[in-house]
Amino acid sequence: MVTARRAAEIAPFEVMDVLSRAQALERAGRHVVHMEIGEPDFTAPAAVVEAGVRALREGRTAYTATLGLRELRESIAQHYASRFGAAVPPERVVVSAGASGGLLTVAALYFEAGDEVLVPDPGYPGYRHFVRAFEGRARALAVSAVHAFQPTLAMVRDAWSARTKALILGSPSNPTGTLIPRSELEQIARFIAERGGVLIVDEIYQGLVYGSEPWTAVELPGEVVIVNSFSKYFCMTGWRLGWVVLPAAAVRGFEKLAQHLFISAPAAAQYAACAAFSDDSIRVLEERRREFARRRDVLLPALRSAGLGVPAEPHGAFYIYADCGRDARDYCLRLLEREAVAATPGVDFGANGTSHHVRFAYTRAMADIEEASERIRRFAACAPSA
Amino acid sequence: MVTARRAAEIAPFEVMDVLSRAQALERAGRHVVHMEIGEPDFTAPAAVVEAGVRALREGRTAYTATLGLRELRESIAQHYASRFGAAVPPERVVVSAGASGGLLTVAALYFEAGDEVLVPDPGYPGYRHFVRAFEGRARALAVSAVHAFQPTLAMVRDAWSARTKALILGSPSNPTGTLIPRSELEQIARFIAERGGVLIVDEIYQGLVYGSEPWTAVELPGEVVIVNSFSKYFCMTGWRLGWVVLPAAAVRGFEKLAQHLFISAPAAAQYAACAAFSDDSIRVLEERRREFARRRDVLLPALRSAGLGVPAEPHGAFYIYADCGRDARDYCLRLLEREAVAATPGVDFGANGTSHHVRFAYTRAMADIEEASERIRRFAACAPSA
Repeated sequence: MVTARRAAEIAPFEVMDVLSRAQALERAGRHVVHMEIGEPDFTAPAAVVEAGVRALREGRTAYTATLGLRELRESIAQHYASRFGAAVPPERVVVSAGASGGLLTVAALYFEAGDEVLVPDPGYPGYRHFVRAFEGRARALAVSAVHAFQPTLAMVRDAWSARTKALILGSPSNPTGTLIPRSELEQIARFIAERGGVLIVDEIYQGLVYGSEPWTAVELPGEVVIVNSFSKYFCMTGWRLGWVVLPAAAVRGFEKLAQHLFISAPAAAQYAACAAFSDDSIRVLEERRREFARRRDVLLPALRSAGLGVPAEPHGAFYIYADCGRDARDYCLRLLEREAVAATPGVDFGANGTSHHVRFAYTRAMADIEEASERIRRFAACAPSA
Repeated sequence: MVTARRAAEIAPFEVMDVLSRAQALERAGRHVVHMEIGEPDFTAPAAVVEAGVRALREGRTAYTATLGLRELRESIAQHYASRFGAAVPPERVVVSAGASGGLLTVAALYFEAGDEVLVPDPGYPGYRHFVRAFEGRARALAVSAVHAFQPTLAMVRDAWSARTKALILGSPSNPTGTLIPRSELEQIARFIAERGGVLIVDEIYQGLVYGSEPWTAVELPGEVVIVNSFSKYFCMTGWRLGWVVLPAAAVRGFEKLAQHLFISAPAAAQYAACAAFSDDSIRVLEERRREFARRRDVLLPALRSAGLGVPAEPHGAFYIYADCGRDARDYCLRLLEREAVAATPGVDFGANGTSHHVRFAYTRAMADIEEASERIRRFAACAPSA
């Protein structure tokens, strides 16, 4: 075999099969409602787009410093101060090529052969794949609806061993849209800090919370790494821009790795993102957040009335993770064929009960959400889940 | 130690120290000629910029397919046909987040613990760092001026062992600007193919050749991987866009890895790059190529007349790799302090004779190249190399 074992061991996204079939149906003329995509239907606020246009036209398109434009690092630090009251020096903020680029560099920085890393199951599949890519071993924490599909201190304590290096978790979580309670994460952070481990908190969906105020883990004690992104709340997926907040002592190691692995994040995206924190942009983004909440408030009761189980109320991101009571691959393919609604089978997100769960993304306009709700109810009526 | 061993083992770029000091001199009012930067002073052709602007304004800024926009993959394939007469199906062309993102994914795809990978020394430092990042072991080929600082079949044969997985080489080379003879590379490719190894050819400086016609290794036999970039010939560094041509059977593995590691390359950059192969763009880029040649033709004799040794004529990229006959770190720092000319100490590029070599990049306008030539000659007159 010419390729490395990791290439065989890293799983593809099942959702891509759903997407391909959905696109085939569209070519055949059907109106598919896409709820499989983890990407906002909105684009960047106008001020961000125009800042990007100016950067392109003014030729500000060279490599930037590896850790990112100073101005952007300062804007992000200021955002922590003004939004969360958190004191984060700009020197600890590093800009990355998407949160993916940030997670990749963090994984390269901390993980090596023999290291065990705890990841929630279900959880974002990238966590375990980044661990595997750098020869660590991901160990699944079987999170459950009882605890909002989030790790608890008890789980972390039970799973922690001499080989455990880190815990990665996301809050709000993909695929479940659930949040970890602040007090629980504080206890977990203290536990990990006492053992000299690393706590990596994926705050990629930060800002997209409904019914509560967003908060950040950035000031928790110990070796805490925060990964964030301009993709979700800021609606800038294809710009490929994220950031990481690192312990001060880890910045130089991150920089050395990123110099070689990435050189720098996209330049025009960085100039554009400097406009993302302006009052105008935040006003636009907050209105979108309220629109996501309205969509959730339509879709969630619709799924429940169609017989799907959603025991852990989703309070963030733009996902509902629902128990369809049967094989979820089959459910997704039939729902797509019969009713042209595309959703993601749970197996993309782990092995813990995922085979009968489905992730629905509410990243389409309200008319589509309402149409999909009707179709899902009709599908349930014709094809009972038992 | 909380971070992984690889973080300690991966070296920083020495050039960054030079750059920092150069910037300090500039803040103090001196006119520094920057010859340390491996980045064209030109920006993307106007047609490319405007295509990028349209993509931003039209909201074509979502994730693309992981392997890249179909249209761009087809344009790149067409470029191989029209420029090199090479038949490359678009399915084998994958778009990456810079050549760095391409090399990273290729390294993840092929290398694992125990694998040895041959890399030229001097050579682009990323090669050995990408190998190290994925737990392979880079083995240096001591290339010499006699063979234009390029590997030869004899060297590869001598170094190849049962553990050898691959050879990586760049042509034109960074830092030497030299090309590998086509017949030599053909023989190397056959040798590696017979052993079931992988030949990775970095063609990032393709198109930037002076006095000969560019060619490509894409049709060589065996497991051949071509890495290319929009950064150098196309003058799009900060757009972070490159491409890789893979063996057909490797595309799916690359895709799976890139889905998790990158999701996709920057979207607007991809739409913009579709305009990079137009007649208008190529006309602009070819004029710049001729300008690079004119700069080389000024700088090369100037360096020689200042007593620096350039035994292997540089015929490509935008670098001259010169023997300064003394400790090159010291040479670079003194040249910077006294004459405000910034250049890169050779140690960034390996351990084989690099301590007394310097890389000069001719990526500044002709007036600066002429000014730097004068300053380097004056510096040599005051500080003899012995």
